[in-house]
Amino acid sequence: MSGEAAFVAALQALSLHPAARGLADDCAVLELGGKTLILTHDMMVEGVHWLVGQDLADVAWKLVATNLSDLASKGAEPLGVLLGYTLGTDDTRFIEGLAEALNHFNVPLLGGDTVRSPGTQTLGLTALGCATHRPIPSRSGARPGDTVWITGPVGAAMLGFEALSAGATAHTQAYCRPVPRLVEGRALAPLVTAMMDISDGLLLDTRRLAEASAATIALDPNAIPLPPSLPPSRARDAITWGDDYELLFTLPPGTQPVCPASQIGTVLIRGDHPLLLGNAPPEGRLGYEHS
Amino acid sequence: MSGEAAFVAALQALSLHPAARGLADDCAVLELGGKTLILTHDMMVEGVHWLVGQDLADVAWKLVATNLSDLASKGAEPLGVLLGYTLGTDDTRFIEGLAEALNHFNVPLLGGDTVRSPGTQTLGLTALGCATHRPIPSRSGARPGDTVWITGPVGAAMLGFEALSAGATAHTQAYCRPVPRLVEGRALAPLVTAMMDISDGLLLDTRRLAEASAATIALDPNAIPLPPSLPPSRARDAITWGDDYELLFTLPPGTQPVCPASQIGTVLIRGDHPLLLGNAPPEGRLGYEHS
Repeated sequence: MSGEAAFVAALQALSLHPAARGLADDCAVLELGGKTLILTHDMMVEGVHWLVGQDLADVAWKLVATNLSDLASKGAEPLGVLLGYTLGTDDTRFIEGLAEALNHFNVPLLGGDTVRSPGTQTLGLTALGCATHRPIPSRSGARPGDTVWITGPVGAAMLGFEALSAGATAHTQAYCRPVPRLVEGRALAPLVTAMMDISDGLLLDTRRLAEASAATIALDPNAIPLPPSLPPSRARDAITWGDDYELLFTLPPGTQPVCPASQIGTVLIRGDHPLLLGNAPPEGRLGYEHS
Repeated sequence: MSGEAAFVAALQALSLHPAARGLADDCAVLELGGKTLILTHDMMVEGVHWLVGQDLADVAWKLVATNLSDLASKGAEPLGVLLGYTLGTDDTRFIEGLAEALNHFNVPLLGGDTVRSPGTQTLGLTALGCATHRPIPSRSGARPGDTVWITGPVGAAMLGFEALSAGATAHTQAYCRPVPRLVEGRALAPLVTAMMDISDGLLLDTRRLAEASAATIALDPNAIPLPPSLPPSRARDAITWGDDYELLFTLPPGTQPVCPASQIGTVLIRGDHPLLLGNAPPEGRLGYEHS
């Protein structure tokens, strides 16, 4: 373990507060005045999280959408966001995209900070939400016998990224303007045993959910929904690519989801491997690792 | 108006939510479950907000302290912080300083995000607090006849910065490890008509308070507390330098502060100028302007 993983582990050692779950589980949970506050902070860096030259309106949208996706995975109702913004060369487009996203998701901008920097443009967003159901869905509640579901296909963001990288403007929507599953998250929260959003790749995030739940998850490769335009040869790429922001969740036996979703696997007693694809543990890269 | 000011104005135009006061007044105020949540987000950039080569432990301390100072100015009790961290070359020292600050102020790290960046190290911190008194102190409540106070001297951070820039290790504490006036802020909140922390220079921040209150403030230059080590010739520099994080506040006539503080002026009916130093409006630079 080195670099970012070591840093996060050291940060986690600081987080002794019982409310502090944010560094392990994407969101922090804080009880306040009878309400349960859900908090998340995500950063984006030029050239790392978006392409140099990409439309800053799309970057603003994605900054909002990825943070709201974390709230969606907790079944939370967004209360507002705070923006940390490094001034750049296309601030006007950023503001336009930010306004579009905030209006679309009906979320107020509560405050923030802007700075000048001689270097790479770096953005941060803090999103606050209020839990609509307790217990708050987490990654750790899946039990053997549960079914595993996903709210939509994976791979569309990958195709969008590839189109954008090739200079296309069509078919880039899934990558540039992801839509967090806020309505689905709130509807599912009372039913699920575990839930998370898929940001780093279906295989990797499923393994994380299985490990957090001390279980094994067996995925049926033929049941995973893929975009109609995906060439069959790209199926493996699609399930290890991130940025789709669908919800991955588990349901008790016999429970059906209350929104469109595909059953993609089952939860088993923990075996030798936390993740099976078909009948074998998948080999190679599972997704985007923060190494 | 251009650059950062224009960007902030455009952001403010997005902040139509009645709870959104953050971009105009440093902190956002959000009512939730009978509690009043105070939120602030401040960023720091290498080479802009700290010296290249400066001890990252001090940078971490200051990142925490400056955000908590915003909470102090609202009389808020800190609930926790979320960190946005760009990995750099001295992450271990950062963690050490972060732990020192969080332990010192008894504030939990709730969550956050870490990223890799090819460029300048950029940090963000979101601090959450709970108001201890309502109405929340703001910049806009000063009334003619009120007295104007400050919790401590200005200029020590400037001397510390100059010592540090010259390669000294002694006498740098005020710049490197500012202490937010949390206890004082909570004690003063029920008494003040207006309050803010001084981050950008006493003259500039006093003018902001006067303008927000639609009043004129007359400061007595001989009453402003300065560090004993400050050469008399540097008095003007001291009152236009920032980073001291003392609290500036106004009290109704006849009210005395409940913590050590110096009376430095009086609030007048708004005249031709929002700020008088002695009997005349100060000329030249008043502080650090986010131009």
